This record gives sequence, C-alpha cells and structure tokens, in this order.
Amino acid sequence: MSQRATSPETAGRVLVTGGTGFIGRHVLVPLLDAGYEVHLITRNEPVVPAEVTVHRADLLVPGAGERVVESVRPSHLLHMAWFVAPGQVWNSFENLRWVEASLELLRGFARVDGRRVVLAGTCSEYDPRDEPCRERGTPTEPDTVYGASKDALRRMAELVAREAGFSLAWARIFLAFGPHEHPARLVAFVTRNLLLGQPAPCSHGRQVRDFLHTPEIAGALVTLLGSGVTGVVNVASGRTVTIGHIVRHIGNRLERSELIRFGEVIPPAHEPPVLTADVERLRGEVGWRPSRTLEEGLDATIAWWKAQLTVRSPG
Amino acid sequence: MSQRATSPETAGRVLVTGGTGFIGRHVLVPLLDAGYEVHLITRNEPVVPAEVTVHRADLLVPGAGERVVESVRPSHLLHMAWFVAPGQVWNSFENLRWVEASLELLRGFARVDGRRVVLAGTCSEYDPRDEPCRERGTPTEPDTVYGASKDALRRMAELVAREAGFSLAWARIFLAFGPHEHPARLVAFVTRNLLLGQPAPCSHGRQVRDFLHTPEIAGALVTLLGSGVTGVVNVASGRTVTIGHIVRHIGNRLERSELIRFGEVIPPAHEPPVLTADVERLRGEVGWRPSRTLEEGLDATIAWWKAQLTVRSPG
Repeated sequence: MSQRATSPETAGRVLVTGGTGFIGRHVLVPLLDAGYEVHLITRNEPVVPAEVTVHRADLLVPGAGERVVESVRPSHLLHMAWFVAPGQVWNSFENLRWVEASLELLRGFARVDGRRVVLAGTCSEYDPRDEPCRERGTPTEPDTVYGASKDALRRMAELVAREAGFSLAWARIFLAFGPHEHPARLVAFVTRNLLLGQPAPCSHGRQVRDFLHTPEIAGALVTLLGSGVTGVVNVASGRTVTIGHIVRHIGNRLERSELIRFGEVIPPAHEPPVLTADVERLRGEVGWRPSRTLEEGLDATIAWWKAQLTVRSPG
Repeated sequence: MSQRATSPETAGRVLVTGGTGFIGRHVLVPLLDAGYEVHLITRNEPVVPAEVTVHRADLLVPGAGERVVESVRPSHLLHMAWFVAPGQVWNSFENLRWVEASLELLRGFARVDGRRVVLAGTCSEYDPRDEPCRERGTPTEPDTVYGASKDALRRMAELVAREAGFSLAWARIFLAFGPHEHPARLVAFVTRNLLLGQPAPCSHGRQVRDFLHTPEIAGALVTLLGSGVTGVVNVASGRTVTIGHIVRHIGNRLERSELIRFGEVIPPAHEPPVLTADVERLRGEVGWRPSRTLEEGLDATIAWWKAQLTVRSPG
C-alpha cells in the first residue's frame, strides 16, 4: 500500500475537475505527494494513479456535479475543467455552459461546508493595455466570450466564498505549453511540423508573452491550493519573451529553422501585442517559482513530441 | 376580437419572463398596445389579458426555458424574472441559479436568431460612491451576491449579443414601489402599518434615493425594448429624494405621521447613504420620462393598499 494516500491525517480531501486535461493531468501526482485524498470528476476513461478515486460524470449535465460533491464531501476543490477547443474557445457559447456548471459546483461545495477552492482563470480576463498585468490594479475588460465568462465567474465566486465562508483563490493562468498539446497551438504546431519536415507558417512573432510549461503550472496550482492565499493570483513564469524567441528555439534545437515562415499568418484581432504578468503574489505570498527554465521546458516538450512521432511512424 | 394583437404586421413576437412579478405585471398591456405578439413564461397561474399566450414552465428547471424559446421563436426577449425574496435576495445562492437560467435563455435566443433583448439589471451593480451613477463611467463593484450575479450576467450577455448579432439593452433599474409590493419593503411597510394603525419603525431616513412607480418602470422597459438603444441604461426618475421624504408623504396623506418612528431601525451595512441615477441616456437616447410625479405614484399606491385592506377587513 502506498504511503502517500490514505493516512487519517491527510492534507484534506480534494475534488479535482479537469484532471485529465492539458494542464490538469499534471496535478494528480503532486496532490498525492502533498498528502491529499484525491477525487477526480471526469467524463473520460482516465489513466490515473491507483490512489485517485475516479467519479465518472459529465459536469455539463445539470445536477451531475452537485451529486458528486454531495457524495465526496470534499474539503478542497480544484476546478480546472472548461471548454478549450482551439480557435472556437474564444467566442463559443459553450463557455456559458461551463459558467453554469461551475456555479453548480460552487453551490454544492458551499452546502457540504468545503473549506478551500482554487479555480482556473485566464490572462484573457485582463485588459492587456496595462502591462505587466497586476492582480490588483489592471482592469478586467475581456473582449471575448471566453474571457468574459471566466471574469464573470470569478466575480460571482468571490462573493459566494465570502458568504459561504470558504477560502478561494483564482489562478489567472498565462500561456501554457507542454505534452499533449493540441496540434493547432503554437509550440505543438511548430514542433510537430518541423519534426515532420513540413513548413511552419507563423505570425510576425513579435508578440511579447509569458509562457510556462504545463507541469510547472500544475505545481503552482497545487502550491496555491495548500497556501492560505485568497483572491486573484497570476500564474506565470515572470519572464517575458517574444513568440519569435520560442519558435526560433524550437527551430535551433531541431536544426530545421529554414522551415519556419514568419509573417505568413495574420494574428487574430483579439491578440494583444504584449501580455505579461506581474508575479509578485505568486512568488512572495504563495512562495512558488518555476523549477525549470523556459528552454528546459521547451526541450522536454520537443523530446515528448519526438517520442510520439517515432512511435507512430511506420518505420 | 381585439384590434391590438394578431395583425400580421406586429412590432415583433416578444417573450416575457417575470411578467407576473412586482414590475413585470405592468408590461403586458403596454406591450400589446405597442403592437407586439406577447408570449409569457411563468410557473404561476397568471391572470393576464386574453391576447397573451401563456407558457407554463419553471425557468430554474434546466432545459425548460430553452424549450419555450425554441417553440416560440421570439424576435424580442424581455427577461425580468429573478429571485427577489426581501432580505434574502442580497446574498442567497438562488441568484446563481438565476444566472444559470438566464444564460440558458440567451443561448436559446441566439439559436433562434432573435433580434432584440432587454434584461433587467439593478442599481446594486454600481459602486455607489460615485454619484450620480452613470452608465459609462461609474465602476460596477457590487458587494452582494445579488449585485455580483446581475453584473456578471450583464458582462457575459453583452459578449453573447455581439457574437450572436442581436441588439441588447441592460436596464439598470433603481428603486421601485407600487401595488403588490412585499410588505417588508419600505413603501408597502409604512403604508400598511399606518393604515392598520400600527407604528412604523424606520431607519434615520436620510438616505438619498431615486424611486419610481412600478407602472412607470414597466413603461420605460417597453419603450427601451422598442428603441434601438444598446448597452446599459439607467431606469430611474432622475429626481432624488430622501427616504424620510417618502415616509413623511405617506404619513401626511394618511394623517398618521405620529406612528412613524425614525431611527428605530439600523440600515443594513451594504446600503449606501446616496444612490442616485444619471438619466441622460433614458431621456435623451431612449426618449422616455415619467408621466407622473413621485407623489402621484405614492398616492396611487396608498389608494391601492386602502382598497386591499378594506376588502380584506372583516368589517
């Protein structure tokens, strides 16, 4: 029997949503390591550590999330599930259904006297004209249904937490890359195309961003959950780079820079030229900082894609 | 057969929610008079004009609102239904269920290619430290679950309207009084108590407010629906009075001022000293202003309570 799970003195009983997703798949082991009894809601057939209790449910079915909350009676909730189809995510009305599902979870959590919640927000909530984006100061003026839905959920969740008497942190997650990324997204797109010997058309590449490797984001979320820090917390590396820097790093590592085609893609209108994070709360109050550099994360991701494409190639 | 309903050239087919409520009960006749084909969603057994088509449904049952929208296929939506139990309204999680129900209605309305929406908001969305509250300028910083829920819904609804291509106005309704008011609310409480010969304990009465008679509010909403005006519109009289002025007017009319007990009630912490409206948009862009003075509205309300209490008294 594992040493880490079923001790009576656990860190708490955490209910996780989105725990099979792009970011969330990396939280389960750190949560077990931190001493939580881990419960996962998912509509998938997940491959997860044996210590994780899986609850099969579709959060978009009204009442489903509430029923799991009532049966698990978690002390902690880490809610990351959302609609994330690349391209469609920005203005799909599926975002509204996730607001509805999230409100149901929060109402249920209040009813079972839960203590601590971390919810996944997004840098798309910010008005990025302010730079770097600060939790206390930068206005939220989202220009997409996605950003507005997350921002609206946060506004309601903070009042619900106050009234129900639980502690709530809202993780405003900046840009992510890592294994299992959708091939339409930047790092996955460039890495795959170059590995396959295909051209990689890109935008001009001068957009300034803060990128973080998904296992790092997961670590930050678990640290945040265990902290007493409340309110909005930017989850980002604190280092800003251009998209061009990332693309060129991949090109150099794969020695296929000649396949990169800067300037062939027009960036979507809603993409700001600069979107960066003030990380003083994450570093100072939560006490978290990345354990790897951006380039180490990119190299690990490139290695993952190499393994994927090698296994799948006919040779 | 009535002349006003079934002409092929109607102003549109309007779906009304909350049309049996404190404000909403006054919209049905003006909508018919304005030439709309009127459909009402309600969970009650309403007494309504014969030309109104009633759809019995509970909007809090997931899918119920969507089904009515799909069967009616309205061109216009006037959504006023909400949880309004006095006292409880401020921080009840029922507010979240109404956000969920409202999002479902909006998604359905987008799917049937609706053209025009008016939603009922509230002055409680504003940060009342700014005064008078202006639609473009005063920040929304609600301090209650009620205010946060309405504010959050508005933020999402505006993006949904943009993406779905319908026209949307958000009516930020200030203080209301009129017939059928809950006896725990100010005008009803003072009027009833004085008519019954009972003392009326009040707060200090120095709060500054903008009160409007419910039939006037309904008229403003119908005018707004027929206008092309989009975004937030304050719905208020534009005249500010103290709560003491209103209470003293009732006392004078009923010649029972001696029953009024100012200073015996401590106002709730979330009540601002001043909460008033800039009504330039309502007057200048929508072209609406009240047809009666505050005192005329109060007198009509007093007369309504007199009739109620006379009919019900054993003598």
